[in-house]
Amino acid sequence: MPSEQFPQKYDRVFNFSAGPCCFPVEVLEQAKDEMLNWHGCGMSVMEMSHRGKEYTSIIEAAEADLREILNIPDNFKVIFYQGGATLQFAGIPLNMMGEGKKADYIVTGQWSEKAAKEAAKYGDVNVVVNTKPEKFTHVPRMSEYKDKLSSDASYVYYCMNETVNGVEFDYVPEVGDKPLVCDMSSNFMSRPIDFSKFAVVYAGAQKNLGPAGVTVVIVDEKYLGNEMPITPTYMNWATMAKAGSMYNTPACYAIYMTGLYLKYTKAHGGLKHWDDLAEKKSGLLYGAIEESNGFYNAPVAKNVRSRMNVPFVIKDNDDDLKKKFLAEAKEVGLVTLSGHRSVGGLRASLYNGMPLEGVQRLVEFMHKFYNENK
Amino acid sequence: MPSEQFPQKYDRVFNFSAGPCCFPVEVLEQAKDEMLNWHGCGMSVMEMSHRGKEYTSIIEAAEADLREILNIPDNFKVIFYQGGATLQFAGIPLNMMGEGKKADYIVTGQWSEKAAKEAAKYGDVNVVVNTKPEKFTHVPRMSEYKDKLSSDASYVYYCMNETVNGVEFDYVPEVGDKPLVCDMSSNFMSRPIDFSKFAVVYAGAQKNLGPAGVTVVIVDEKYLGNEMPITPTYMNWATMAKAGSMYNTPACYAIYMTGLYLKYTKAHGGLKHWDDLAEKKSGLLYGAIEESNGFYNAPVAKNVRSRMNVPFVIKDNDDDLKKKFLAEAKEVGLVTLSGHRSVGGLRASLYNGMPLEGVQRLVEFMHKFYNENK
Repeated sequence: MPSEQFPQKYDRVFNFSAGPCCFPVEVLEQAKDEMLNWHGCGMSVMEMSHRGKEYTSIIEAAEADLREILNIPDNFKVIFYQGGATLQFAGIPLNMMGEGKKADYIVTGQWSEKAAKEAAKYGDVNVVVNTKPEKFTHVPRMSEYKDKLSSDASYVYYCMNETVNGVEFDYVPEVGDKPLVCDMSSNFMSRPIDFSKFAVVYAGAQKNLGPAGVTVVIVDEKYLGNEMPITPTYMNWATMAKAGSMYNTPACYAIYMTGLYLKYTKAHGGLKHWDDLAEKKSGLLYGAIEESNGFYNAPVAKNVRSRMNVPFVIKDNDDDLKKKFLAEAKEVGLVTLSGHRSVGGLRASLYNGMPLEGVQRLVEFMHKFYNENK
Repeated sequence: MPSEQFPQKYDRVFNFSAGPCCFPVEVLEQAKDEMLNWHGCGMSVMEMSHRGKEYTSIIEAAEADLREILNIPDNFKVIFYQGGATLQFAGIPLNMMGEGKKADYIVTGQWSEKAAKEAAKYGDVNVVVNTKPEKFTHVPRMSEYKDKLSSDASYVYYCMNETVNGVEFDYVPEVGDKPLVCDMSSNFMSRPIDFSKFAVVYAGAQKNLGPAGVTVVIVDEKYLGNEMPITPTYMNWATMAKAGSMYNTPACYAIYMTGLYLKYTKAHGGLKHWDDLAEKKSGLLYGAIEESNGFYNAPVAKNVRSRMNVPFVIKDNDDDLKKKFLAEAKEVGLVTLSGHRSVGGLRASLYNGMPLEGVQRLVEFMHKFYNENK
């Protein structure tokens, strides 16, 4: 149904959105098939009581599949939250910091910067790294800031992949016996996680896992139960973990979609499939940028270029060329390639749902556009 | 696909769940049709960037339709939240109470009881009414507690319809110049709202408005900006209102479904349609209970029986008869009729999505069951 507002008519596009973002089409097809009647129960998943056996089986399978795929140790609790990473920016100090205490924050992009700012409402925040002066385009080596870590920090926080800036850590910070808290929103499910190095890993689903509206918090149970008295009950990890994410009504349908995505993942080779695909897709795109003799330029240091979010500019960020690029890309079904409103330029996000074919088409288009505008 | 776990095969059932609950089937059909490609844009709604023009048009239409249907005055802000009413139990004192101050709570069921308990984390809570000793089966008249209202309360809180207990206020409390905060989760969209009497009205969507995962907060803008410093940014109503519910990624798909439900509502006679239907459906069911000579019994005082949630018992809560009732009802496609785990018995919820035909079938079944077991 094209309209005046949305005149273009597509079957399906290749959507490079930074999140929410593309799903494997088979996952959407299954959701479509089951929309009015899930497994013969006569109800849509949206209509089920969350306490009924049908929905209980859905949320339990989602957790079990997530545990299996990521090899999550038994001593970690999995909680399906609402409110996004933004709500957890408060949830982390409320549950982990302790009253009147301190935490160390490694700031390498806009999201870790926001997390640090939020945490400062609840205690003392020690920013051990801040790459903002370099426009968040690199990640310092551990040796450059190891001495700045506080001896009395309740935890150390970092964001493994900065969505806006396209920076992805190439190492896990060594923080000794301090609990390490990691925002993996944008590279979750794209590579294995060594849980022995983390106290808390969390991620908004709307990149590699499901739709917006569900956030997964995976927390070592030994850190539960230390929440500040002002913690809203909803944000009390211990309470929520004990209730199996059902202290109150969860985001039922979003968790169901997450479950379908996880089943798809299992059927297609698990984490290794996504890991290999991420390597291939990002390799193709960064390769095309490198081969353009500076026509395209990626600002991030090579060793920490994200496999998920690829920001780039055309000819020193020429605005007319950017507009032309976006318009012509759209004509061939390549959409949502604008950079984040705060940084400008272009950005292609290559989440798990983006097929190799989409990146191939983007690279072909970029080559053609280069030849016509160099 | 019936399975060993779910052997029964239905086309569609009549689902009396207290929420999440049944949708109008046309709304689900539209969602199904649009699942892989919304209005020719080549994406599912789940895949859209929330900042793109497609999704922006969806969330703006949902708010506009809600404002139109409920006749929401311009000085009220509409916010689509995640986290359910439970998160707002903290959000209300954090935004409305003021540090070191007080609020009055009218407790007439389990949900207002929980809200009062949560608010006590943030200040002084004065419980002016508590009907727990009478098992939450009635609502005191205003004259019985008017004198107990605090002169220095920052607001007065009540829940207009208690989902678990089936109690619905038959009046709006008169609180003078105090801001009145109302949880309407379970009867929202079933009757007109006189916004001149309220400072804040809020409701989880998963009853009459949409799927679980979205909560609507409607707040008079003059009460914004008074949040405590410890308020998580996500829960800061002023921040969220200013950002048009998009301070961070909203629950995109749940809001889209809400929008479809609102469009359906507009096309079918608006609030008056649901109001009339609620009167008819609840009249039929309470009538059948009354005519059973005590075989069925509704515990709630007649003047405050909810039109949305109808708890009842069989023969002084006979457990064997209850089980038989549930099993036989299921055979004829009448499901989710168990009472809340905390109160037992039976409960039929008659939200907007439940067609008259469903209640007629329930009443026929109840009559037959009465004849066979009286």
